[in-house]
Amino acid sequence: MSAIERLIRPRSVAIVGASADATKLVGRPVDYLQKHGFSGAIYPVNPRVRQIGSLACYPDVSALPEVPDVGLVLLGQEGAQQAVRDLAARGAAAAIVLASGYGETGQEGARREEALKRAAGRMRLLGPNTIGLVNLSDGVVLSASGALEIDDLPTGRISVVSQSGGILGSLLSRAADRGIGVAKLIATGNEADLDCTDFIEYLMDDEISSVIAVYLEGLRHPEKFRKLALRAAALNKPIVVFKVGRSQSGARAASSHTGALSGTDRVYEALFRQFGVIRAASFSDLLDIPAALASGRRACGRRVAILTSTGGAGTLIADGCGLAGFDLPLPDEATAAHLAAQGIDRATAHRNPIDVTLAGLRPELFRSAVRVLVGSPSYDAVIVIVGSSALARPTLVVEAVVACQAGSDKPLLTYVSPHAPHLVRLLNRQGVPSFATPESLASVLEALQMRALAPGQSDPADTGLRRAAPGELTAGPMDEVQSKALFAQFGIPVVREEAAANGADAEAAARRLGPRVVLKIRSRRILHKSDLGGVKVGVAPDEVDACCHEMLARLRAAAAPEPEGFLVQELIEGGVEMILGVHRDPQLGPIVLLGMGGVAVDLFNDLAIRLLPIGRRDAEAMIGELKTSRLLSGFRGTKPCDVGALVDAILSMAAMGVALADRLVEAEINPLVVLPEGRGVCAVDGLVVLR
Amino acid sequence: MSAIERLIRPRSVAIVGASADATKLVGRPVDYLQKHGFSGAIYPVNPRVRQIGSLACYPDVSALPEVPDVGLVLLGQEGAQQAVRDLAARGAAAAIVLASGYGETGQEGARREEALKRAAGRMRLLGPNTIGLVNLSDGVVLSASGALEIDDLPTGRISVVSQSGGILGSLLSRAADRGIGVAKLIATGNEADLDCTDFIEYLMDDEISSVIAVYLEGLRHPEKFRKLALRAAALNKPIVVFKVGRSQSGARAASSHTGALSGTDRVYEALFRQFGVIRAASFSDLLDIPAALASGRRACGRRVAILTSTGGAGTLIADGCGLAGFDLPLPDEATAAHLAAQGIDRATAHRNPIDVTLAGLRPELFRSAVRVLVGSPSYDAVIVIVGSSALARPTLVVEAVVACQAGSDKPLLTYVSPHAPHLVRLLNRQGVPSFATPESLASVLEALQMRALAPGQSDPADTGLRRAAPGELTAGPMDEVQSKALFAQFGIPVVREEAAANGADAEAAARRLGPRVVLKIRSRRILHKSDLGGVKVGVAPDEVDACCHEMLARLRAAAAPEPEGFLVQELIEGGVEMILGVHRDPQLGPIVLLGMGGVAVDLFNDLAIRLLPIGRRDAEAMIGELKTSRLLSGFRGTKPCDVGALVDAILSMAAMGVALADRLVEAEINPLVVLPEGRGVCAVDGLVVLR
Repeated sequence: MSAIERLIRPRSVAIVGASADATKLVGRPVDYLQKHGFSGAIYPVNPRVRQIGSLACYPDVSALPEVPDVGLVLLGQEGAQQAVRDLAARGAAAAIVLASGYGETGQEGARREEALKRAAGRMRLLGPNTIGLVNLSDGVVLSASGALEIDDLPTGRISVVSQSGGILGSLLSRAADRGIGVAKLIATGNEADLDCTDFIEYLMDDEISSVIAVYLEGLRHPEKFRKLALRAAALNKPIVVFKVGRSQSGARAASSHTGALSGTDRVYEALFRQFGVIRAASFSDLLDIPAALASGRRACGRRVAILTSTGGAGTLIADGCGLAGFDLPLPDEATAAHLAAQGIDRATAHRNPIDVTLAGLRPELFRSAVRVLVGSPSYDAVIVIVGSSALARPTLVVEAVVACQAGSDKPLLTYVSPHAPHLVRLLNRQGVPSFATPESLASVLEALQMRALAPGQSDPADTGLRRAAPGELTAGPMDEVQSKALFAQFGIPVVREEAAANGADAEAAARRLGPRVVLKIRSRRILHKSDLGGVKVGVAPDEVDACCHEMLARLRAAAAPEPEGFLVQELIEGGVEMILGVHRDPQLGPIVLLGMGGVAVDLFNDLAIRLLPIGRRDAEAMIGELKTSRLLSGFRGTKPCDVGALVDAILSMAAMGVALADRLVEAEINPLVVLPEGRGVCAVDGLVVLR
Repeated sequence: MSAIERLIRPRSVAIVGASADATKLVGRPVDYLQKHGFSGAIYPVNPRVRQIGSLACYPDVSALPEVPDVGLVLLGQEGAQQAVRDLAARGAAAAIVLASGYGETGQEGARREEALKRAAGRMRLLGPNTIGLVNLSDGVVLSASGALEIDDLPTGRISVVSQSGGILGSLLSRAADRGIGVAKLIATGNEADLDCTDFIEYLMDDEISSVIAVYLEGLRHPEKFRKLALRAAALNKPIVVFKVGRSQSGARAASSHTGALSGTDRVYEALFRQFGVIRAASFSDLLDIPAALASGRRACGRRVAILTSTGGAGTLIADGCGLAGFDLPLPDEATAAHLAAQGIDRATAHRNPIDVTLAGLRPELFRSAVRVLVGSPSYDAVIVIVGSSALARPTLVVEAVVACQAGSDKPLLTYVSPHAPHLVRLLNRQGVPSFATPESLASVLEALQMRALAPGQSDPADTGLRRAAPGELTAGPMDEVQSKALFAQFGIPVVREEAAANGADAEAAARRLGPRVVLKIRSRRILHKSDLGGVKVGVAPDEVDACCHEMLARLRAAAAPEPEGFLVQELIEGGVEMILGVHRDPQLGPIVLLGMGGVAVDLFNDLAIRLLPIGRRDAEAMIGELKTSRLLSGFRGTKPCDVGALVDAILSMAAMGVALADRLVEAEINPLVVLPEGRGVCAVDGLVVLR
C-alpha cells in the first residue's frame, strides 16, 4: 500500500493531542471517527489523559501498541513538530497537521514550515493549516470540521480536493443538505508536502470517485496537473475547479491564507479550457456541476425540453437556458402528438416550455409527459420543474421523474421553484440531479455537454531550431530586425525590409521596396517608437530623406536616445492586423497569445491563450475563440483571410517558445498581418526578449 | 378609499367557488385567510355548500349580507365571468380571477379575456391567471399559493409585485426560510385591467413598504413605469426588478405565459439604468438585494472590510468583491492599532480579510473587532463571515454582529459559509442581512451604493424644430444629402459636400472641396454603398471622373439600381468615428444610441442606450458607459477628442427624436467623427427614415 493509500484508508490512526472534552475543537476528531463508523484502531495520544470514552489514551507516540498508519496532530506549532518527528520515527505513513501559523503568515512561518517538513523526513505530511480529510466511502474521518456534527452524510461518487478547510466544511454540509453524496474530501492546507495534485492523482485511480471537485487557490505543480487533466479526460472522470484569485483582492487573500500564489487568472482559464477541466463560475456550481456529472449522463447536443406546471418558473428557466446558448425547440409533430395522446391540451403540446398548469397535479399525466419528452428525438436533455403544488404532494413529481429516468440515458434534471429542501434532497438521493437556483441549470447543462479533447503537441524539430540554437542568441531585448530574423528562422513570413544608416541610404532602399514604404527609426532602446513619432506609413521615396530628418529632430526634442539608424519596409496593404506572442507566465510557464490588433485586445481583452506546447487543433481553437474572429472570415464585404497561414504562424511561434525554453522572456509580433486567402501572413513588427 | 386600497386592505371578502375540502386548491383560500389572521368578514360563496368550517356559505353573490370589498373568484372560465358580473353588480371594489386560459393561450383566449373585462365594467380586476395577493402587513391573504402552507411568514418592509403567481410563491417561501420579512405581495397575472404599475404606484404611498421587488415579463405601460421610477428615486424607495426575456427562448416563454411581450432586453436595461431601477442579475438577487436595502443603510463608497474566522471563505468573498470592482484596502494605522489592542495578532490586524482564525471563538474579541471595523474611517461597509465553528456555537457571531450594528449606519453584512439556514434566519430576523451565496455579497454591495439620479430633459425647442416642422417631411427613407440636411437643422455639424449629376460635375466639386475628397454614389435605394464599391476615400480631383465611371460600371455589373448621381465630400482626417442614432423600440418607445465605429458595436455590442428625452448628464453618462470611451480621451498618444461637442450632438439627436415623435422610424449618423478638442464633431454619413 502506498503512503497516500494508507493516509486515506488507514487501518489504525493516532490522534495526537486528543482531548476528552468533546465540546473542544481537539475533542472532536475521536468523537467524529467513532460516530462516522471508523472500523480500525483509534489511539488517542495525550500525556494528561488516561481514557477518552472507551478508548485508552497513550502518553506519547512511542507508547502506542502498533505503528499507526496515520497520525492526526491536533497540537499547536511546537507540539506538532515533536509529534511529527515521533510519528516519523515510529514509521507512520503520514501525519496530518491542523495547526496554522506557518508559510501563510510570512517568512518566519515559512521557516517553521521547513522545520516541520524536515521533522517528517520521508513520512508524508498533509497540511499544516488543514482541517484534515473525510473519507466517507470507507468511514474514515480524520478532521475537526464542524460539518461533521451532521449525523447523516450521504455517500456518493463525488470527491473533493480543497486548498481550504473551511470550504471543505462548507461543501460537505451543503452537499448533505442537498442530498448529494460524496466519497472522499481532502483539505490540503499549506501543502508543505502533499499537494492537491497528489490527491487528484489518487482519486484518478479510486473507482468510487467519478467526479473530482477542486477548490483551488493556486497550483504548485502545474505540469503534473496538466498530465492529470489529460488522464481525467481519457478516463471520462471530470475535474471541476473553482479557482479564486480572479481579482487582485482575492489573489492577495489567497496568498495570506495558504501561501498559494494564484497567478494570472486568464492563464489559469486557458489551462482549464485547454486540458478539458470544467471551471465552476460560481461557488454553487462547484457542487451543482459535480452533482449532475455524477449521474454519468451526458448530453449529445444543446436542445432542451422544459416541462412545468408553473409558468413563471418555466419562463425563468427557459430564459436562463436561452441566455446560455441552449436551444428550446418546439416539440416535433410526433412528440406533440404523443403528448396530446397523454391528455395534454393540443396547444400546450406544441410549446416549450410545456406548461401543463393544474394538469400537473395528475400523476399519470405528468409521468407520461416526462416519458414522452425523455424519449423524444427532438431533445438532448429534459428539465422538469417542481412547483408550489408539490409542497402539498411531494411525491407527485419526484415519483414521475424517478420512474422515467431509467428509460433513457439523457440528462434529466429538476428545478424546485418554492423553498423545498426536502424535495431537492429526495430527488438527489434518488439519483435525479435537483437544483434550487435557476442559474445552476444552464451551468450544469453546459458541463454535461459531451466534449472531445485532443490536446496537441507542436514539434519544434520541424522549425528553424536547428539553424538557430538558442545558445547562440544573446540575452536582453533584440531590436526589430534581429527579432524578425528569428521569427523568420522559425518559419514565420516577415515583411521585406532594409536597414539604413541615414536618410540617403533609406531613400535608396525605399526605391527598391515599392512606390510607398513604411519608414521607422531603428532602436533597441526605444520600445514605443510610434509614440515618439518614429514610424511613418505610406512614404514615397522622394519624401524619405526629409522624413528621416524630421524623425531625428523629434527624438532630440523629446530627449530620447539616439537611434541606431532607420528601417525601410515594404508597405503591406489589406488584410487584418493581429498580435501573436509567446511569454512565460510566472506560475504556469510558457504560453502563446493571439489577439486582434487595434482596440480589441486593449479595451475588450479579446485574447486567446494556450499553454505550450500546442497542436494544430489548439491553434485553430484559439482563432475561433476570439470575438473578433469574424473579421478573418470576410466581414462586411472584405475578403476572407488566409486562416491556414495564421494557424501555421501560431504553431511556429509556439514551436519557437518551446525551443527557446527557459531563455524566453517574451516574444511578440505586432502586427502580424493576415492577408487575403492564398497570400499568407506577414510579420510587420516584433520584439524578442531573452534572458 | 380607492378601489386598489379596498382590494389590498379589504374589510370584507367573498370567496366565490370556495370548497369545504381544504385539501383542494379551491378549499385553500378560506383556510389561509383564517390561518394568517384576517380580521374582516369572510363570505364563502358556493351553491352546493352550506357551511365551511364555522362560516356560513352563500349560494351566490346576490345573497351576501353586505357588499364585499373584494371577490376572490376560484371558478373556471365560465363561472368566473358570471361571478365577476355579479360582483360588479353588487358594487364590489375589485375581483381577483385565478382561472387561466385567457390571453396567454392565443386569440380565442384573448376574446374571453375581453369578455371578462366587459363583465367587470367599472369594477377593478386582478388577473386572470393570477395566484392572487398576500398582504402580510394587514393579515389579508387572498391567494391559493401553496407557499401559504407555511405557518410562520415573517413580516417586514419588502413588497413584491410579480407577473407570475408561481414566482410569488417561490419568493414568499424562500423569504420565509431566510427570515426575510415581507409586507405585500401581488401577482398580476395577465393584467387584463390592473397591471404591475398600478401596484407599484400603490406601494409608493404605502409607508410600510420600503423596497419594491418586481418580477417582470414585460411592461404594458412603460411611460407610467418611468414616472414611478423617478418618484421611487425621489422617495429613496428602491425598485429592484428581475426581468426575463433576456433571450429569445425566454421572451417566447413569457408571451405564452402571461401574454406579455418582453421587448428588447437591452432597451429595458437602458430604462432601468436611466431611471435608477436596480436590475437583479440573478433570481436570488431579487430577494437578496431587497433584503439588504430594507435595512435602510447605504454605502458611501466602495471600500469593504472582511472579518472572518475561516480563511477560505474570506478569500472567496474577497475575490468576489474584487471581481465586482470593490476595494479591500488594508486597515489604516489607527484601525490596525485598535484591532491589535483588542488582542488580534499584529500581522492579522494589518490585513484584509482580517482572519482571526480560532480567536474567532472568543466572543469578546470578535465583538470588538466588528466594532472597530464598523467605526473605522477606512471602510464603507463591513462583511462578517460565519464559519463552521458557529454551527456548534450559533450565537457567538450573531450576537457580536447584532450588538455592533447599532453603533453605525454603515452596511454590515454577513456571509454564512456552512449550510446553516437557522443562522441565516436568525441574522435576517435581527435586521442583519445574511447570505449563503458568495456572489450575493457583491450584488448587494453594488445595490447599496448611494446613487444620485438626475434624469434630464432635452429641449427640442432649442433646436431646428421651428425651421423644419416634421409635417413638411415626406415618409420613407431620405437619401444621404437630405438626411444630413435634417441633422444640420437640428444643430449637428455635417461634412461639407456637393451633389453632382455626373463625373465632370463631381470633378469640379472636388476642386472646391480640397486636395483629396471622398467620392460616393448618391442613391436612395442602395443602403450599403460601400459593399457595392460605391464609396472611395482620398480621391484627388484628377482621378474623380475616372472613379465615377468605375463605380457606375461596378453597379451595373452587380445589377444594382441606377444611382441618382454622385456626392463629393470634404475628406475628414483624424478624430474618432462613432455611430449616433435614434430609433423607436416597439415596446418602450424612442431611444437614442451611441457606439464606437468599427468592430466595437458589431462584435462587442458596445452600445449606450437611453430612452428619450434625455438631459446633458444622460448624454455624458452614455459616453462614459462605452468600453471604448478611452479612445476619446487620447488613447496611445492620440489627441483628446472634443467630447463637449459630442455631448451636444447626442442632445441634438435626442431633440430631433423627440421633435419627430411618432413619425420617427430611425435616424443614424455613421460615422460621426469626433475631432480633436476644440474642433467639434462632423456627421460624415447618415440616414433618416420616417413614416
